[in-house]
Amino acid sequence: MPINPEAVGAAGGPSQRSWTSKDALLYAVGIGAGVDELAFTTENTKDTPQRVFPTFAVILGGGGVPMDKIGSFNPALMVHGEQGIELLGEIPPDGALESRGKIAAIWDKGSAAVVEMESEASDAATGKPLFRTRSSIFCRGEGGWGGDRGPSAKVVFPDAEPTHQVTYNTRGDQALTYRLSGDRNPLHSDPAFAALGGFEKPILHGLCTYGFTGRALLHALCDGDPARFRSMNARFSRPVIPGDALTVSMWVNGDKALFRTTNQNGDVVIDQGECGFA
Amino acid sequence: MPINPEAVGAAGGPSQRSWTSKDALLYAVGIGAGVDELAFTTENTKDTPQRVFPTFAVILGGGGVPMDKIGSFNPALMVHGEQGIELLGEIPPDGALESRGKIAAIWDKGSAAVVEMESEASDAATGKPLFRTRSSIFCRGEGGWGGDRGPSAKVVFPDAEPTHQVTYNTRGDQALTYRLSGDRNPLHSDPAFAALGGFEKPILHGLCTYGFTGRALLHALCDGDPARFRSMNARFSRPVIPGDALTVSMWVNGDKALFRTTNQNGDVVIDQGECGFA
Repeated sequence: MPINPEAVGAAGGPSQRSWTSKDALLYAVGIGAGVDELAFTTENTKDTPQRVFPTFAVILGGGGVPMDKIGSFNPALMVHGEQGIELLGEIPPDGALESRGKIAAIWDKGSAAVVEMESEASDAATGKPLFRTRSSIFCRGEGGWGGDRGPSAKVVFPDAEPTHQVTYNTRGDQALTYRLSGDRNPLHSDPAFAALGGFEKPILHGLCTYGFTGRALLHALCDGDPARFRSMNARFSRPVIPGDALTVSMWVNGDKALFRTTNQNGDVVIDQGECGFA
Repeated sequence: MPINPEAVGAAGGPSQRSWTSKDALLYAVGIGAGVDELAFTTENTKDTPQRVFPTFAVILGGGGVPMDKIGSFNPALMVHGEQGIELLGEIPPDGALESRGKIAAIWDKGSAAVVEMESEASDAATGKPLFRTRSSIFCRGEGGWGGDRGPSAKVVFPDAEPTHQVTYNTRGDQALTYRLSGDRNPLHSDPAFAALGGFEKPILHGLCTYGFTGRALLHALCDGDPARFRSMNARFSRPVIPGDALTVSMWVNGDKALFRTTNQNGDVVIDQGECGFA
């Protein structure tokens, strides 16, 4: 059974998820945070209460989407398309949430299908909304049923030097730590499996690159304060290989910033980025 | 209440402990294993069943020792003294065990006390012994009650070039990943806490250095096969700072090897090492 375009609108949930301080710390080291970011990488440093990266929402959230409704596709040919998060408050170091989700759209790109999913997570105890996520997956080898191609890129970057640029190095073994936050797809670790997908080497998780990018946005735009981080939307435009250097360029306009992330060769790996902050 | 020398012989347990594949993988990346060691760092690589580093015994084991019997000491002044493991079989990627332990000895070093603990872990389902651990802690500021100083160093290294030498680099953020395997002592992450203990910077967990050393022994002596690894005993002789390079030198004699680990300055950080293998 291929992708089923009739699945649009299907809703599900609530799904439950709880997390501990350790989960948040493991995520932090998985996206490259280190000894200069002890608020995110430790829970017991003097005068340094534990904080949580806003992009941890992509690990905790996204639940309640009825994935069984969208049909089938080859996971070795699937890559992450776009990812958005909207924070309605700061994510606590530990807690429990409920997510409700839906299939928001399915687009026919001809040689691929794009499936868009939305989910909202609420505090399990109080019912208060915590954050929303919106993501799309790009399924190569699907599509071609004569459906709508969907909207095109909309972000236009200013013809000016970026307001901020931050460069982080990923490590050659980055995916091996990141995957322990939940996504064990061997595309990111097994050379044989990656070859089946047409990749010369295992590629970094798109959401790991997203996490590195969000770290850069948080520090450059919000002075490292997650309470000031509001939203982040971006498109994955090219695979990152573990060991690549990532440079996040930001153009600030009031309480918004456009951004993109490039590798050490100048190739754009995350594009169409928009970040809201206070 | 200081250290109580009368606690020798006190026994306890059984204490229960279970572990998952994820725990073993997190330990592996914590001791620096990477993309060249996918058997230890992944569970789903083609034709590569997950294996477990023998030194994971120090995370799983050591339970059942009645620590409440030994009195009190200042944890900021405490460092790991010696650590031994004896493997009775290969540690599976997941499982459950029971440990029984005892206070094996307490020595008076004058300006410090040394407490030695032994523990044996058995498969919780079958009762079959899995491994034994023996460890000692070095408590500065204790001692001086006129007790026995205990035995002195016994390993004499040959006056010859080592049979094998393996060098691994630790990372500046090594302790931040290693600590997620359980030992959250801020001596290894919080500069303020480390300063209380008289250290200029947070020091690496002694057991992390032990893990790096055990990885080197496993690869050099057992061709990476944990089923051939029998035992490892060593003394922690000097703190390692995260970011240090560690060189393990081994002198092989039949199915035994003597070893020591030095940092990039040639200082011995793990001494008196003995390893048994098949």
